[in-house]
Amino acid sequence: MELRAYLEQKRELVEAALARVFPEPGGPAEDVVKAMRYSLFAGGKRLRPILCIAGAEAVGGEGQGVMPVACALELIHTYSLIHDDLPAMDNDDLRRGKPTNHKVYGEAVAILAGDGLLTEAFHQMTNMKLSKELRPEALLRVIRIVAEASGYEGMVGGQVTDIRSEGKAVEPRVVEFIHTHKTGAIIAASVASGAILGGGTAAEVKAIRRYGESIGLAFQVADDILDVEGDSAKMGKSVGGDARKQKVTYPSVFGLARSREAQKELVDHAIRALKMFDHKADPLRQIAIYIIERKK
Amino acid sequence: MELRAYLEQKRELVEAALARVFPEPGGPAEDVVKAMRYSLFAGGKRLRPILCIAGAEAVGGEGQGVMPVACALELIHTYSLIHDDLPAMDNDDLRRGKPTNHKVYGEAVAILAGDGLLTEAFHQMTNMKLSKELRPEALLRVIRIVAEASGYEGMVGGQVTDIRSEGKAVEPRVVEFIHTHKTGAIIAASVASGAILGGGTAAEVKAIRRYGESIGLAFQVADDILDVEGDSAKMGKSVGGDARKQKVTYPSVFGLARSREAQKELVDHAIRALKMFDHKADPLRQIAIYIIERKK
Repeated sequence: MELRAYLEQKRELVEAALARVFPEPGGPAEDVVKAMRYSLFAGGKRLRPILCIAGAEAVGGEGQGVMPVACALELIHTYSLIHDDLPAMDNDDLRRGKPTNHKVYGEAVAILAGDGLLTEAFHQMTNMKLSKELRPEALLRVIRIVAEASGYEGMVGGQVTDIRSEGKAVEPRVVEFIHTHKTGAIIAASVASGAILGGGTAAEVKAIRRYGESIGLAFQVADDILDVEGDSAKMGKSVGGDARKQKVTYPSVFGLARSREAQKELVDHAIRALKMFDHKADPLRQIAIYIIERKK
Repeated sequence: MELRAYLEQKRELVEAALARVFPEPGGPAEDVVKAMRYSLFAGGKRLRPILCIAGAEAVGGEGQGVMPVACALELIHTYSLIHDDLPAMDNDDLRRGKPTNHKVYGEAVAILAGDGLLTEAFHQMTNMKLSKELRPEALLRVIRIVAEASGYEGMVGGQVTDIRSEGKAVEPRVVEFIHTHKTGAIIAASVASGAILGGGTAAEVKAIRRYGESIGLAFQVADDILDVEGDSAKMGKSVGGDARKQKVTYPSVFGLARSREAQKELVDHAIRALKMFDHKADPLRQIAIYIIERKK
């Protein structure tokens, strides 16, 4: 299989599904709908939805069937970016080459747009079509996993630790906590959700979750490395921001050489976790490699 | 029945359940847990959880059984207060007689505490014990109703319209939109969720939802009136804030006399909606009256 074509095909399916999530603006609350759509369609890679689809396909499920949950994962990711960019948080003016949400809509609407996206994510998940193959209990389990990965035990916990660690000399375990929680948890939940919704066995879901935990951490380490040596034109944002903000990153704690080693080890570990799967897990295998080789 | 004793007894049950939601602070993300607990235990009336319990009891269900959803509703309410109080929103320093969340923990942690509470609400709902009486489909329906009532089609939509209307001369339908969405929707969802989880028939759930919509609007009209003529010592916050902020309120649009009439009509309407129910709906009937007679 050709990964570039796979990613492009799935991305288009996700874009089409996301376009149907919100109505065209209109009515008294249209400001927040516009703001939500602005960030949602600012040109993301749609990695989390694609991982959810690929997770379902790896266990023999039908990728298109998981779309409501795939969309929900992108809504959660988008909300987290809007709130992270706020002046009280990372205070970023640019994201993917465009002004950040609060720069366009103001802080109040940006906060509410984030809240609206997060809430709509859980609403979207209830749109999943139940069937003999997808029991409601499985969907409840997915909602639970996504909530855990997003909340104070996951993404929110990672973000607060990230902010509180800026400018401090922290132990290596803190940077690992930040990365596994802030980024890793929702990536692992994306691929595990797909495996559950696709009808995976307990052993399959467990293996795919392990894969997800490894690539989730690898993804953030790669992000840290890109912030040191990436090309700002390709990334749509200035590089070196982590150092300016005195962020705790893998390179700042472990150095660049060890960070590069670490991401390779994590990808090897992820691919080994998939050994029970046949060719249907090839997209997952290739995505693991893509995650550390991407330029943005 | 004696409403004061009923409210007190249910409130204590809710407090005990809420105390078990979060672990005692500890670990790297403890800042956000502290901040979430600070606002969660700042002395609310627990009206939404009690309405959920009373909704379940009205249809013959067991109130204690709905506790995970009841707690979730209070988490959502608390998150909305934290975000509403932020400098970019209402910029309030006091809430229930105590410094607001961002005054104590800073804006970044306050935003994340709100995010964490909202996310944990959906996690809590998945803690509901499924049984022959509570099918997973019913719980998914409740998650859906709560998400709708909280998101851009509900509370978030009401809040953004509220903020965008400040200082403007608006049509009466706008103040009604704000109130039914910002406050009314989640109150209606609270009591309707209880009725669904308690095993109510479709007709019962519909009637209870209608009751909820009426008291939800009545609650916000009463709040507006209290802000004009309430006792700031009893309310734990300064009165007259709406006028200072040039908020669109019922009294500002319809005048005090018409607002008082409107809340009475809404309560009558709510009580009439319950005509199919026996004495088990007495708490709901009395809560409707309490809502417009309370002093805080």
